[in-house]
Amino acid sequence: MASRIRASVFVGTSVDGYIARLNGALDFLPAEPEDHGYSAFMASVDTLVIGRGTYETVLGFDSWPYAGKRVVVLSSRPVAPPRLPGAAVEHLSGRPADIVARLAERGAQHLYVDGGITIQRFLEAGQIQRLIITRVPVLIGSGIPLFGALTRDVRLQHVSTRHYESGLVQSEYLVVS
Amino acid sequence: MASRIRASVFVGTSVDGYIARLNGALDFLPAEPEDHGYSAFMASVDTLVIGRGTYETVLGFDSWPYAGKRVVVLSSRPVAPPRLPGAAVEHLSGRPADIVARLAERGAQHLYVDGGITIQRFLEAGQIQRLIITRVPVLIGSGIPLFGALTRDVRLQHVSTRHYESGLVQSEYLVVS
Repeated sequence: MASRIRASVFVGTSVDGYIARLNGALDFLPAEPEDHGYSAFMASVDTLVIGRGTYETVLGFDSWPYAGKRVVVLSSRPVAPPRLPGAAVEHLSGRPADIVARLAERGAQHLYVDGGITIQRFLEAGQIQRLIITRVPVLIGSGIPLFGALTRDVRLQHVSTRHYESGLVQSEYLVVS
Repeated sequence: MASRIRASVFVGTSVDGYIARLNGALDFLPAEPEDHGYSAFMASVDTLVIGRGTYETVLGFDSWPYAGKRVVVLSSRPVAPPRLPGAAVEHLSGRPADIVARLAERGAQHLYVDGGITIQRFLEAGQIQRLIITRVPVLIGSGIPLFGALTRDVRLQHVSTRHYESGLVQSEYLVVS
């Protein structure tokens, strides 16, 4: 059923709300590979929906982080195929609602929407049901913001918050409207 | 001792980091007068340091919220005196470090720095020791941001996080560098 599909965001930000530096660097995120619920979240996801910027950042990784998942790259321009072992992507473009409907038709049930512009577009379009935001204890002053302009307030329902020894604070919200 | 003075921020923001709408409105903050530690914080403060924008917002309140505290309004322009009963302010201008030094000379021990631009200037100048940020579960898309540009990363140390029935999440950080 197309109506059963849902989309979540799972993202780390600086306390001032940046998911990456202006050049895409993630050096302010913790270096140690703590989990913070990421593995469990990924296990619940069948499809990644990412923008070109996130895709190009991931291409620089040593290994493909989305093994076993359908990965959809959103871009209005052609997308080069990944060369990392086991990696494969599909390329889609269009409005968030249409993207979600197409993925639902193909059996997707839980989308992981990632990347600044993509998250902002999907939020504005009302296509995100859940936000899991992990704040790293640093202010970086500039970068790629998690959130952007909206044509209306988006009310959230707080589900839970936990904090970690490293100082990370993770809050989960449902999108109410 | 001038070296004993410290400055804190205690502020509510939307999840997307705004402390007020572009017109100064605070309508997205909870209407019910929950405390969330504000009374205890205020009891620990002897001096308010606020910008013109915050001052003008407070002038619209029914009563003066800073009774019993020294209140310093920072502005490069003249500041009209408050007309609310019991209200009095001093007017200072200058660099954050000089403001803090002058207030320390006058016996101030714990400053409450408030207002978007003022908080940003004092953070950039290394004059804030503690941040208590309470996130309200809503995205408003635009407004007066809590944080601004920095010439360097500002590392924070997470002290504690609590959440409230209303969905507010409050985190306290110390400024490390």
